[in-house]
Amino acid sequence: MDDSLNVPSLDTDSHHRDPAGANPAGPDSAEAGGWHRTALKVRYQETDKMAVVYHANYLNWFEIGRTEMIRSIGLSYREIEERGIYLPVLEARSRFIVPARYDDRIWIYTRIGAFSPLRLEYEYEIRRCEPEEAWSMDAAPFAENAGRPGTLLTTGATEHVWLSLDWKPVRLNKIAPDLYRRIARLAGEAQNSD
Amino acid sequence: MDDSLNVPSLDTDSHHRDPAGANPAGPDSAEAGGWHRTALKVRYQETDKMAVVYHANYLNWFEIGRTEMIRSIGLSYREIEERGIYLPVLEARSRFIVPARYDDRIWIYTRIGAFSPLRLEYEYEIRRCEPEEAWSMDAAPFAENAGRPGTLLTTGATEHVWLSLDWKPVRLNKIAPDLYRRIARLAGEAQNSD
Amino acid sequence: MDDSLNVPSLDTDSHHRDPAGANPAGPDSAEAGGWHRTALKVRYQETDKMAVVYHANYLNWFEIGRTEMIRSIGLSYREIEERGIYLPVLEARSRFIVPARYDDRIWIYTRIGAFSPLRLEYEYEIRRCEPEEAWSMDAAPFAENAGRPGTLLTTGATEHVWLSLDWKPVRLNKIAPDLYRRIARLAGEAQNSD
Amino acid sequence: MDDSLNVPSLDTDSHHRDPAGANPAGPDSAEAGGWHRTALKVRYQETDKMAVVYHANYLNWFEIGRTEMIRSIGLSYREIEERGIYLPVLEARSRFIVPARYDDRIWIYTRIGAFSPLRLEYEYEIRRCEPEEAWSMDAAPFAENAGRPGTLLTTGATEHVWLSLDWKPVRLNKIAPDLYRRIARLAGEAQNSD
Repeated sequence: MDDSLNVPSLDTDSHHRDPAGANPAGPDSAEAGGWHRTALKVRYQETDKMAVVYHANYLNWFEIGRTEMIRSIGLSYREIEERGIYLPVLEARSRFIVPARYDDRIWIYTRIGAFSPLRLEYEYEIRRCEPEEAWSMDAAPFAENAGRPGTLLTTGATEHVWLSLDWKPVRLNKIAPDLYRRIARLAGEAQNSD
Repeated sequence: MDDSLNVPSLDTDSHHRDPAGANPAGPDSAEAGGWHRTALKVRYQETDKMAVVYHANYLNWFEIGRTEMIRSIGLSYREIEERGIYLPVLEARSRFIVPARYDDRIWIYTRIGAFSPLRLEYEYEIRRCEPEEAWSMDAAPFAENAGRPGTLLTTGATEHVWLSLDWKPVRLNKIAPDLYRRIARLAGEAQNSD
Repeated sequence: MDDSLNVPSLDTDSHHRDPAGANPAGPDSAEAGGWHRTALKVRYQETDKMAVVYHANYLNWFEIGRTEMIRSIGLSYREIEERGIYLPVLEARSRFIVPARYDDRIWIYTRIGAFSPLRLEYEYEIRRCEPEEAWSMDAAPFAENAGRPGTLLTTGATEHVWLSLDWKPVRLNKIAPDLYRRIARLAGEAQNSD
Repeated sequence: MDDSLNVPSLDTDSHHRDPAGANPAGPDSAEAGGWHRTALKVRYQETDKMAVVYHANYLNWFEIGRTEMIRSIGLSYREIEERGIYLPVLEARSRFIVPARYDDRIWIYTRIGAFSPLRLEYEYEIRRCEPEEAWSMDAAPFAENAGRPGTLLTTGATEHVWLSLDWKPVRLNKIAPDLYRRIARLAGEAQNSD
């Protein structure tokens, strides 16, 4: 079985975020290119004997972040998978700055870092809501340059590739142009980016 | 609580593996600088609805790899922690090439990529034992340039920092010179590397 | 190390819920003896290759249920543990009726089934919010005889014992009478129940 | 979607283990009706902030126990599922006596407690290998009345029901008589038990 994932490099293929660039999104998508925030409380099961959150759990939280970001534009991974499209993780990176602890109130910030018909890259910040900060579990957008409440605990990024059910790379703009357009808009990319 | 981890950069501080360099280990540590292999079978709980191993689990497997590598020189993380030394993960990277599936026979290859009194970096390869390959769950060393059986599924690396129980960076050669020497030898570094 | 948990049997020691009995709680605790509801959405990581939630995860959800029930009276397990009191699980039972699936909207219903100075027993219902039902993630009380929205997926119970930090059974009314009174009231027991 | 599991009660349907009964297995299956042992070492990820194994993980270990027991007769769950037969958990019970800790050497003992064409019940003991005991990770059978090495940490049982891929109960002796016979023999039941 050769089910290895041989796709062109992200660097040559996709539209990377230009940190200094203007937000190309139109007036009807004020949040395009910005951060999406969702929230959770640390579960007991997520701690380990160092009394902090076991590091692998941050990857779960990253996934919750991107799931809820996609949901904010009326999509769900469940529906995407029911249409026969998978979006597995190709690469993951995380940097652990301050450990999260049991019952901490956590905000997950997610944005799209790069986007192409073949791939999608997300960036994440995990932040802890401090006692003096107003807690909210509601999903919320944050403009790219706006301050993001919470103490920074972890940063990370994941790269994904669009696959068919039989685990072959597909071009999203070919097989699901509606999905492609909506995610492109969320990413803050011009729609003719490919 | 300021429990952020502010330590000097790995780049300026530690002795990185020189991919082309000769193995500096002496004749009494033939495997120094090489790979250590351990094994597991994929658990049902580790799969997800894509019918592959959920990606966060590879970080658990990396940990099993480094735990067993350390055990191969007669140490255990449990004892290290009982001496008041923690070695949390500061950074983790992984690249997913071929997915592992339920009941696959997995080999975890681990080696030390960089080492200093303040930090430790591990590198990993997750490989699948194919039906035609001889399966073994026994721990085993592999010389750096030797072939490593199994189909490559995932690669990764983790960076760690030595901490005291109160979560402050410590220099391992100061607080536990015996540990430092043994791990240095395992890493294939000259013992006067600092 | 003898750290086995030898405590008197729950049957002889505690005040079990009388399913047919009147609610003994006074007029100031209308919800005493009833159910507490909290909510979550199924995470991708919680699914397995059968495309349903892996069964061990329901025990995590039970814990979230009892954590949030305790929080509803202004307590938190984190604070209880910081006071040197542990409440580990002594016994757990669960019955799986309908499987939960990825992204399902889940309500966790929890109530106290039995209570004594030595032990605590919780009962659980996991229910799925159907598309035609109004979804809410807010914590909410439900009177014992009131209808509970959602399709029943799983039932369960856990028994717990109060322990000191060195893992020895303690009588909660002796070491923390304030905690004892508050939980007794939540349980719908007369406060002089021991 | 009505995917609830409505099957006849285990009590009326299956052949329960008779604790005092003679072992009905013939001379060619000396271990039928006995215990099967497999082994693991406690992973860091399995611990929680109480510094013990988080209780839900024992359900994972139970699954490893029954998986390896089935493998001991040349079957695998993977193959069973590839034949279109699922065996989900209908009910689970566990009793926690002594907590397992990081790096403990654990033996999982599994036996079949009841068996019928519709259902299967397993019983489990989790035991810790003490320093003075000889450690082995090899799978091994234990006669029903033989001593079982290790300190008893946890006991448990799980009930399972045979399902088709579309999640409907099936009679194993009808859809897979070969499987039925082999498991019946493992269970120590007479082969004409239905």
